[in-house]
Amino acid sequence: MVRTVFFDRDVAITQTSSIAGPKEGEGPLKKYYDYILKDDIIGQKSHEHAEIMMQLQCIKQLLNKAHLSQNDVDCVFGGDLLDEIIGCNFAMRELEIPFIGLYNACATFGEALILGAIMIHSDYMSKVITTTTSHYATAERQYRFPLELGSQRTPLSQWTVTGAGCSLLTKKEEVGVKVTSGTIGKVVDYGVSDANDMGAVMAPAALNTIVSHLSDTGRDETYYDLIVTGDLGHGGSRLLQILAKKEGLNLGKNYSDCGILIFNREGQDVGQGGSGACCSNLVFNAYLYKMLSQGTLKKILFVPTGALLSKVSSLQGETIPAIAHAVAIEVV
Amino acid sequence: MVRTVFFDRDVAITQTSSIAGPKEGEGPLKKYYDYILKDDIIGQKSHEHAEIMMQLQCIKQLLNKAHLSQNDVDCVFGGDLLDEIIGCNFAMRELEIPFIGLYNACATFGEALILGAIMIHSDYMSKVITTTTSHYATAERQYRFPLELGSQRTPLSQWTVTGAGCSLLTKKEEVGVKVTSGTIGKVVDYGVSDANDMGAVMAPAALNTIVSHLSDTGRDETYYDLIVTGDLGHGGSRLLQILAKKEGLNLGKNYSDCGILIFNREGQDVGQGGSGACCSNLVFNAYLYKMLSQGTLKKILFVPTGALLSKVSSLQGETIPAIAHAVAIEVV
Repeated sequence: MVRTVFFDRDVAITQTSSIAGPKEGEGPLKKYYDYILKDDIIGQKSHEHAEIMMQLQCIKQLLNKAHLSQNDVDCVFGGDLLDEIIGCNFAMRELEIPFIGLYNACATFGEALILGAIMIHSDYMSKVITTTTSHYATAERQYRFPLELGSQRTPLSQWTVTGAGCSLLTKKEEVGVKVTSGTIGKVVDYGVSDANDMGAVMAPAALNTIVSHLSDTGRDETYYDLIVTGDLGHGGSRLLQILAKKEGLNLGKNYSDCGILIFNREGQDVGQGGSGACCSNLVFNAYLYKMLSQGTLKKILFVPTGALLSKVSSLQGETIPAIAHAVAIEVV
Repeated sequence: MVRTVFFDRDVAITQTSSIAGPKEGEGPLKKYYDYILKDDIIGQKSHEHAEIMMQLQCIKQLLNKAHLSQNDVDCVFGGDLLDEIIGCNFAMRELEIPFIGLYNACATFGEALILGAIMIHSDYMSKVITTTTSHYATAERQYRFPLELGSQRTPLSQWTVTGAGCSLLTKKEEVGVKVTSGTIGKVVDYGVSDANDMGAVMAPAALNTIVSHLSDTGRDETYYDLIVTGDLGHGGSRLLQILAKKEGLNLGKNYSDCGILIFNREGQDVGQGGSGACCSNLVFNAYLYKMLSQGTLKKILFVPTGALLSKVSSLQGETIPAIAHAVAIEVV
């Protein structure tokens, strides 16, 4: 069984694009976003339509930043949290670019990066866009309760990030931000059934993938400047650190989580932190990519995490399986 | 822009597995299925659980037929029609195989075959399983109305196939059933908003992909023994033939549709024919694969088609975008 796929030093992320919601735009990463929305409905007739619009504009913004036309791009690899990924599907009908639809919940952006890197490294394609989106209002009403109900949030809940983000992958021999390997996740179910406790659901999947990645690459956890999980939040990250210690793995100072990085816990009332298919995406495309480009970071292990529930599975009393993909991104 | 990816003659489909629902088991392809269910709930507490069970058993059946253990398989590429693809997600938690979750509605199996073939041809992986599932009862209540309501079916409606199917992709130099190229779909919206008229929704997407495939490969429509679309049904297939004629393309005797092939229109009360993520899958894995293995067919263009709606998009009055992927499968 092959879980980790390796690329030479030729799969570069040459451009990124990000659109952040208003609340995300008040968070600690505000100066890194390309564009911050003034409100979360942006003149559309529903929040779903707003999410579709964010997705479309984020891809167009990427094409503008990279001075590319649609015809230059071989394929978009993307997904979102909406049932039947209508965020991506409906954005893509406005574009003339081939499309591969993905769904691994909040781990989808990791899946997209690995598949995109394979396309570039194996010369099947020369330019690939990877993208995901999520929206607080659409996710809450889909997975839990409509916001109009005013339901009280539980202590372990996280705040679904409103935003869209894209990366452009191309082949490049010179030094740059490169995808150097990827470890594909397995579905892990730890028996948690609380749809408000995503951190506990996803931490075991993150650990499973990180352990496999380090084993497959012959590295230890100190190899990376930063190991950053997708959206475990404060509670889930602590749980991961405890579980990791039992495996002899020390996730210490070089470990963080995108759900922690994206919001100020004090003052932003986000519970355990951020979550959603665009949480890790936005932190990567807006912030981590710039840190790598500037040389502040050299080697990161980016581990988007996804909880594979649906409202039907929750209402049928099911526990929640999870998955995590690990992507090594290095300046080489 | 690259829409068509080419493989040499080394990506073989070496085994398939199929499980058909009771109604499918009474259809014209009944003698080709590996296993036919006696009822569509198979002792589970819900139809969703039955769908998950079908998915899991179909993968296990494939492993048995191919004399493989889970550990021999590098990755499963799969998806289904349930919100958040819980059919695949929940089946995969019972297995120790890495997983890439896909969603392109009823075109998902085409997407899986193309991605799987890329993994094999580029030597990233040596054994890949591609799979999808669908279930009449879960799809009807999700996209339209619960069966318990007894809603009258419209004249243009199709019957979602109950079943699961898998292919095993491996590298093989000797003559066999090979995936030789794949054309990735674009999202096409023809302005149809009737969630009961899937044929009209998907026919333009099928045409778009077939035209691109023939252009990219320098072939004409007579190259293939059979061009077979996913699940346009009787009405949608006729529409495709009419649209094709306008493009100078004659989809005549060597054209058919899996939605037509899977049921007897007379006597099975299926409206325009079969549909669902497992319609084209089951016709391929149970029937077409055997025709290719026996040499009755030598060259087919397999074009799974998907309607990218959700219940939310339908209730919000949206039109329905669609996508189709084309996979050339030849005995070489």
